[in-house]
Amino acid sequence: MEEKSDNGGTMKSVIEAPTNPMVTPILTDLYQLTMAYAYWKAGKHNERAVFDLFFRKSPFGGEFTVFAGLEECIRFIANYKFTEEHIAFVRDAMPGKCEEGFLDYLRQLDCSEVEVYAIPEGSIVFPRVPLLRVEGPVGVAQLLETTLVNLVNFASLVATNAARHRIVAGNSKALLEFGLRRAQGPDGGISASKYCYMGGFDATSNVAAGRLFGIPLKGTHSHAYVSSFMSPDEIVEKSLRSVDGSTSCEDFVSLVQAWLNKIQRTKFMAGGFGETNSSELAAFTSYALAFPDNFLALVDTYDVMRSGVPNFCAVALALRDLGYKAMGIRLDSGDLAYLSCEARKFFQAIEKEFGVSGFGKMGITASNDLNEETLDHLNKQGHEVDAFGIGTYLVTCYAQAALGCVFKLVEINNQPRMKLSEDVSKVSIPCKKRCYRLYGREGYPLVDLMIGENEPAPKVEERILCRHPFNESKRAYVVPQRVEELLKCYWRGSPDEVREDMLPLKDIRSRCIRQLDKMRPDHMRRLNPTPYKVSVSAKLYDFIHFLWLNEAPVGELQ
Amino acid sequence: MEEKSDNGGTMKSVIEAPTNPMVTPILTDLYQLTMAYAYWKAGKHNERAVFDLFFRKSPFGGEFTVFAGLEECIRFIANYKFTEEHIAFVRDAMPGKCEEGFLDYLRQLDCSEVEVYAIPEGSIVFPRVPLLRVEGPVGVAQLLETTLVNLVNFASLVATNAARHRIVAGNSKALLEFGLRRAQGPDGGISASKYCYMGGFDATSNVAAGRLFGIPLKGTHSHAYVSSFMSPDEIVEKSLRSVDGSTSCEDFVSLVQAWLNKIQRTKFMAGGFGETNSSELAAFTSYALAFPDNFLALVDTYDVMRSGVPNFCAVALALRDLGYKAMGIRLDSGDLAYLSCEARKFFQAIEKEFGVSGFGKMGITASNDLNEETLDHLNKQGHEVDAFGIGTYLVTCYAQAALGCVFKLVEINNQPRMKLSEDVSKVSIPCKKRCYRLYGREGYPLVDLMIGENEPAPKVEERILCRHPFNESKRAYVVPQRVEELLKCYWRGSPDEVREDMLPLKDIRSRCIRQLDKMRPDHMRRLNPTPYKVSVSAKLYDFIHFLWLNEAPVGELQ
Repeated sequence: MEEKSDNGGTMKSVIEAPTNPMVTPILTDLYQLTMAYAYWKAGKHNERAVFDLFFRKSPFGGEFTVFAGLEECIRFIANYKFTEEHIAFVRDAMPGKCEEGFLDYLRQLDCSEVEVYAIPEGSIVFPRVPLLRVEGPVGVAQLLETTLVNLVNFASLVATNAARHRIVAGNSKALLEFGLRRAQGPDGGISASKYCYMGGFDATSNVAAGRLFGIPLKGTHSHAYVSSFMSPDEIVEKSLRSVDGSTSCEDFVSLVQAWLNKIQRTKFMAGGFGETNSSELAAFTSYALAFPDNFLALVDTYDVMRSGVPNFCAVALALRDLGYKAMGIRLDSGDLAYLSCEARKFFQAIEKEFGVSGFGKMGITASNDLNEETLDHLNKQGHEVDAFGIGTYLVTCYAQAALGCVFKLVEINNQPRMKLSEDVSKVSIPCKKRCYRLYGREGYPLVDLMIGENEPAPKVEERILCRHPFNESKRAYVVPQRVEELLKCYWRGSPDEVREDMLPLKDIRSRCIRQLDKMRPDHMRRLNPTPYKVSVSAKLYDFIHFLWLNEAPVGELQ
Repeated sequence: MEEKSDNGGTMKSVIEAPTNPMVTPILTDLYQLTMAYAYWKAGKHNERAVFDLFFRKSPFGGEFTVFAGLEECIRFIANYKFTEEHIAFVRDAMPGKCEEGFLDYLRQLDCSEVEVYAIPEGSIVFPRVPLLRVEGPVGVAQLLETTLVNLVNFASLVATNAARHRIVAGNSKALLEFGLRRAQGPDGGISASKYCYMGGFDATSNVAAGRLFGIPLKGTHSHAYVSSFMSPDEIVEKSLRSVDGSTSCEDFVSLVQAWLNKIQRTKFMAGGFGETNSSELAAFTSYALAFPDNFLALVDTYDVMRSGVPNFCAVALALRDLGYKAMGIRLDSGDLAYLSCEARKFFQAIEKEFGVSGFGKMGITASNDLNEETLDHLNKQGHEVDAFGIGTYLVTCYAQAALGCVFKLVEINNQPRMKLSEDVSKVSIPCKKRCYRLYGREGYPLVDLMIGENEPAPKVEERILCRHPFNESKRAYVVPQRVEELLKCYWRGSPDEVREDMLPLKDIRSRCIRQLDKMRPDHMRRLNPTPYKVSVSAKLYDFIHFLWLNEAPVGELQ
């Protein structure tokens, strides 16, 4: 599925630094450094360890997750290096006195002994299956934990959130991410923009994200712009050339006013003889003079149907006289289902009244605290919205603000390790594993299967027993029609050894959209989705339970 | 209250760049740039505007908010400058073609004509009262909106969340922020660490935040560290010098084992003859060899009372033989109330059995998905926890992941402006205003009062009518015992004109803690807190309603 990069021996590759320059080896928890010190003191720091990065439950009450953040992880690993400034700070930050030898160890530390296997970014993923497997000296692999988990957690959470919004909105609607101002800090905003696009959004309002990631940018104007005008009298430069440059309208303001007068005399004008707000009319006219090709107006500053929509139509019709096609309106408050339908009727009435073909199809964008649930309600009520601008609930993942990715030791010195817990859901699956996705007859993925490293891979059309890792009664035979190995090598000690290409964002986005389409619909629905099965081989199952009994203390009831 | 900086004429001040280098003029919504262009095209960009930055509702169902993010806002404003790279990107990003004159305008743009008045950072603040008032040419003031709102929203949200955790935990407990891995991106983590400290936390695990902001760092080790060991046999370097350097224990591993044997023979050892987990014992022993002065062990990898606590005690008692004082344990799963009480009893039994004074007071840190509510439950159940490590719910503000700060135009060209809305709660309060906090006889703040710029300030012991801005029946006379002006000047066009000092983080933290203590307790309680009153003068009330009627269209029922 992945194209291989062409690293033909002599070529020197460079992997860029993480997008956020604050991502450095000290963007970590102190205990990673104290542990590294203790490993180093014990002479254990170079023991070969294998860690799995995985989550235990899909977010938002759903049964799927979009894996995101991999490229930033690889950039972090490829550029992992303590500066002298970091070292000096670590010396001071360590509890108690810290031997200089340890600082020398940090000074020379990099990820040249580390290997990273990962599921391709943008893939649909499921609980317990490792998203990343990090192998390397336990000292450095342990030091990577916090940063990798940070880089994957929010990225995957918000990409999943975006994908869920896309599923509810359907493929015919434009989805615009407008969240920067409410995001959790500057790069909460920037990463939200990136990963919402990955999860299926069409554009963002965030200019910095547009620049960093090539995401299409969208935006019109705010209420402040509307209320900054008092009346059309203050517009000084009133002329506008026609779209083909052939003529010029010397007084566009009067042209707009003339159209408004005509509209106000129509029988469909709400509120009959009411005046529209003149500061709003001035703002729209002025905005149209600046963007005659891209006129999109926010129509709810005063009153949508009595002021905003008629004012917009007057400007749009005046623009039309000069050959320009207005883009549409944005609604940012009130009953969006009702108002969008009323606005649509108004546009259609204008089309009919004035014989302006296509006017009834004018674009309607809606915003104002939208989320998955309100989109669902809008669908049920019926609406005429073409594009949704979604901010707060999307970018902060308001419905569930965190994903619980963890990074667990599964093997050290070729010895399988597992973390026990009184809570079975927190028990980790030991061993260095291979992971497969098995596809059924209808082309849908049926089950993800983890097996021990040295077990034979599942084969197409060969029956294999898939067991729930902890529940002994849950098991099923599967005859896969297709077998996909999930973990691919993304880092093997040097940029020149990178095996899988890091694809451009738009390709990762396409992968995500493609995989979402490929899932069986009942796994993806909003209410009571069917859990996707994640399993282990019979052999791995037996080993897990052998190790578990071996490690857990036997209680004694008293 | 504020110390004035000593800007004695010739001194040149510099205000540092924002902490996150990604905070630049293009960290904004596209529509700010399209609006700036439209203002510029209309020749309106230099009209003097006043914007208020405020929120409409305190978060988490509470009635107070901690204002945070001001210093980053001022850093952003002081260093506001488009680079040529930004300009080139803006040229491409603008819808339609953009005149070069506008890019020249952006090129020379800075905040030398901007003034910022703000409530001091770390203050307790309430809905509708401006946190910042930004005055300046409408072009540049409008361009600041998204970034300022972004910098204030999450900062204030997470500082408030921290303060709420502090109130529930009480002042005697240590509160440690452990959230980096679950935070919303890298600087979601870094800013959470900063603002949790501001809101009253004692320390963070986030090394980068410790370095950037001087926040105390805390941390011990993880489950992976414990499971990376197999048995004490693998510990090679077994010697440990005593704390005073006078003696050396050649085989610390055996000393620990000897203590464990003694503990296992006591009648209070849970499960009687059960063996503790030997990989855990090895990990603790090894960690103590690295940090004999700061030994704190995570005791729940296998079984808290049957393995973790006895293993910890064995190591702590061995350390004690060499003059070291162990710091304590961390619990990260299970019933924290019960386990902390059981661990406390065990420590006390050890103290009694072996005559080791003080051992019963061993530190107990608890972590694992803690939040305000679980802290409250722990308090009600009774527990023996001394320090709480709080991550996910704190740093992502899981209970409410966004604060809704907005930035509204309230005046342009000396003309008051207001934004209407069908939703009264979204109507903004027009005019450039002065804001005061009025204190009562008992020293508590009674009410915040907004008045027009030219009205006389409220005076101590002079009766003044305070009106709800929108509800005509809600009004009260107040005779303030103390009057505090809330908005102070933080920026007046140049760093040399900065009037209020930007205090070190620890001083802002002290202000926050002081102000929290000064509030009437019923405003601060978790359940059904009393709303704090926010009001306007009688004159401003009348003006708001005059303007409202003036701007709103009159409907006609059909």
